[in-house]
Amino acid sequence: MSDDRTKIVLSEDQIPTRWYNLAPDLPTPPPPPLNPATEQPAQPADLAAIFPPALIEQEMTMERWVPIPEAVREIYKLWRPSPLYRARRLEQAVGTRARIYFKYEGASPVGSHKTNSAVAQAYYNKQAGIERLTTETGAGQWGAALSFACSVFGLACDVFQVRTSYETKPYRHIQMETFGAQVTPSPSERTEAGRSLRERFPDTTGSLGMAISEAIEEAAKDPHANYSLGSVLNHVALHQTVIGQEALAQLEAAGERLPDRLFACAGGGSNLAGIAFPFIHENLEGRGQVHVTACEPAAAPSLTQGEYRYDFGDTAGLTPLLKMYTLGADFVPDPVHAGGLRFHGMAPLVSAAYDQGLLDAVAIRQRAAFAAGITFARAEGIIPASESNHAIAGALDYLATAEDDGDGQVVLIGVSGNGQLDLPAYADYLSGDMLDA
Amino acid sequence: MSDDRTKIVLSEDQIPTRWYNLAPDLPTPPPPPLNPATEQPAQPADLAAIFPPALIEQEMTMERWVPIPEAVREIYKLWRPSPLYRARRLEQAVGTRARIYFKYEGASPVGSHKTNSAVAQAYYNKQAGIERLTTETGAGQWGAALSFACSVFGLACDVFQVRTSYETKPYRHIQMETFGAQVTPSPSERTEAGRSLRERFPDTTGSLGMAISEAIEEAAKDPHANYSLGSVLNHVALHQTVIGQEALAQLEAAGERLPDRLFACAGGGSNLAGIAFPFIHENLEGRGQVHVTACEPAAAPSLTQGEYRYDFGDTAGLTPLLKMYTLGADFVPDPVHAGGLRFHGMAPLVSAAYDQGLLDAVAIRQRAAFAAGITFARAEGIIPASESNHAIAGALDYLATAEDDGDGQVVLIGVSGNGQLDLPAYADYLSGDMLDA
Repeated sequence: MSDDRTKIVLSEDQIPTRWYNLAPDLPTPPPPPLNPATEQPAQPADLAAIFPPALIEQEMTMERWVPIPEAVREIYKLWRPSPLYRARRLEQAVGTRARIYFKYEGASPVGSHKTNSAVAQAYYNKQAGIERLTTETGAGQWGAALSFACSVFGLACDVFQVRTSYETKPYRHIQMETFGAQVTPSPSERTEAGRSLRERFPDTTGSLGMAISEAIEEAAKDPHANYSLGSVLNHVALHQTVIGQEALAQLEAAGERLPDRLFACAGGGSNLAGIAFPFIHENLEGRGQVHVTACEPAAAPSLTQGEYRYDFGDTAGLTPLLKMYTLGADFVPDPVHAGGLRFHGMAPLVSAAYDQGLLDAVAIRQRAAFAAGITFARAEGIIPASESNHAIAGALDYLATAEDDGDGQVVLIGVSGNGQLDLPAYADYLSGDMLDA
Repeated sequence: MSDDRTKIVLSEDQIPTRWYNLAPDLPTPPPPPLNPATEQPAQPADLAAIFPPALIEQEMTMERWVPIPEAVREIYKLWRPSPLYRARRLEQAVGTRARIYFKYEGASPVGSHKTNSAVAQAYYNKQAGIERLTTETGAGQWGAALSFACSVFGLACDVFQVRTSYETKPYRHIQMETFGAQVTPSPSERTEAGRSLRERFPDTTGSLGMAISEAIEEAAKDPHANYSLGSVLNHVALHQTVIGQEALAQLEAAGERLPDRLFACAGGGSNLAGIAFPFIHENLEGRGQVHVTACEPAAAPSLTQGEYRYDFGDTAGLTPLLKMYTLGADFVPDPVHAGGLRFHGMAPLVSAAYDQGLLDAVAIRQRAAFAAGITFARAEGIIPASESNHAIAGALDYLATAEDDGDGQVVLIGVSGNGQLDLPAYADYLSGDMLDA
């Protein structure tokens, strides 16, 4: 049984000292990225134009544990360890006898888990002598995180933001600008990729894949600039594993056993990887049987509807080919409020884990996601990010249909961020006009 | 000397068990509120139409310590104890040898200190059988806090929001609606006060004083409704003293001595009272010499420019007469980005403490406030609320002019909230167009 705390808080010296890498523990080794020209496994040199050596090494390493530099842990202290909550009021609100916990990343500098990787990426680039980072962002969580991280390490930050988000959700680009970043709506006229995409798709409102193309091009042509990606790649998933490691320690500190069920939202996959991989490690070591469910939006259902094949991470075809569940690199999602979840593919490590039966997936429609988010907000006092609502809906759907109301079960939900800047989406839901996509 | 932690975090059982009341400790007793009809001290019965008995008792009590109900402490656990940070990166950024700490209320359900009183007020009203609370809100922090608190205790929440804020900052009313509240731009046609104010001031964009009039009228005419105020009154200041009590315990836990200087923003005065009164208590008990500075906006300078006299708390004259520093009950501030600080008066207890020399005050212009806020954000990763920027500016101004760079001094800043929903004000500052008011 657990103790009676609402928040389980760790001390700063309990911030993890290493990241966990699932790759060496996969029953079947992960398929390598391919050089699109040769269709042979990509070599470190293929990535050197846009990534620093330390991140290329992390992308390819088969070491299980990767040490976290002290300078990164020092910045993590601004918000980590993040709290784990026992959601007693939510349990009462939905009438379950399960014990629900949620790991909350919304108290980070920009309100989401994204800073966990942004700080690490900015640090390694700074170490490599880089002066500017380019990146893409959709709803803006990643761009904001990298803007913050660049301000910490004195790097310029150049963000290409999906045009529709830039225009309809101006708070996010102001947040990035407050941290000192330059933000450009994408596709733009600044890059060849952007100009070509505007010619091919004159009415486009943009996509993550397009913004990635622009950011990569911009980095590749400047020797003092590198590119930084907020999800999908192995090193990003790696950095996020501080989330799950802390949650493991917090459940133990609360006298709780391993969860029966873990729900996390999945877009590019780094949030899911971050909270779930350390629990999958427990499963693989024979210490647990944690059933992990990736909750993706029905409007961008890469795991549940995509194909598992090699595809580009961006629209212009500038990335290596990645073996992943994909809806196709030119996929443009409906303009639903799923925020950062609207990527066409799924992280190769998450895709491999899904393919090998280490996790399952459900697709959540946005009205169900927001209904769950409002139930959560009124019970727990936290308005979750649009993305996180998918995980909450996944968990509440499960409990609503579980035998015995989930009696005695332990359920862990990853709440990847807060929804302060997603409030217009809540207004859309509350108005009754939200598309049920 | 202090230890080396970045965040000093307390456990849930260290949430204060009682609130601190400055009134009995004032060298000269605080002047009582007056019934405007008789100009005699207001009696409990004068307030019974709009407040429950427990809050009227707290408004008038001369007890030093007031117990916090367990049901309120239980809800406090959703975000309390709030963290105290050692701002090492800010110290470096401004080049001071002072040790700067900040107490951070921005991780509460609505992102500010306001929930500390909202939860208590909703609880006592629920206990008294009330079904609906009416209130006013300016920028929206208080309305959001009461919306959350009402949702916790199953009360309806009816918020009159200053019209200019309602229209220009829609995220806040969506936040309130997400917690289930009804929000009406004020002045409105719903009340006699509102209709009359619209006749007198046809072009008005509203003010806190006007919204208070509407909310009081609406509560007074419904026996099942009460009114709830987010600042100014003694019981609101009382509830906020959890902030300062926790900060005292956290400094001690960090091995730090009492601060030399304490800076907090002041509008209606509840935030200042909340963090500062427990430190003033230390001073009065002879245990410290903490110099407290109220940081008010130059656009609504009640302490530094107002008169200390009896005045109404609202524009229509429905409140008791309160002895306070005031700019006059029909004061309408310039539309500066000072958020909730734009009230015409100052809490009677804060006013008395100022009059009796227990604290001093400075007026901060908004460009200086936002410049300080951006320095803070880039160093500490937290974008502060517009209000909180005034406290940060007050502290940084002081350190910039202190002898010896403040060497060895201990400075405590109250950061009353986060600025996620104030981002348009940051955009105004970053554009260079912000009025220097």
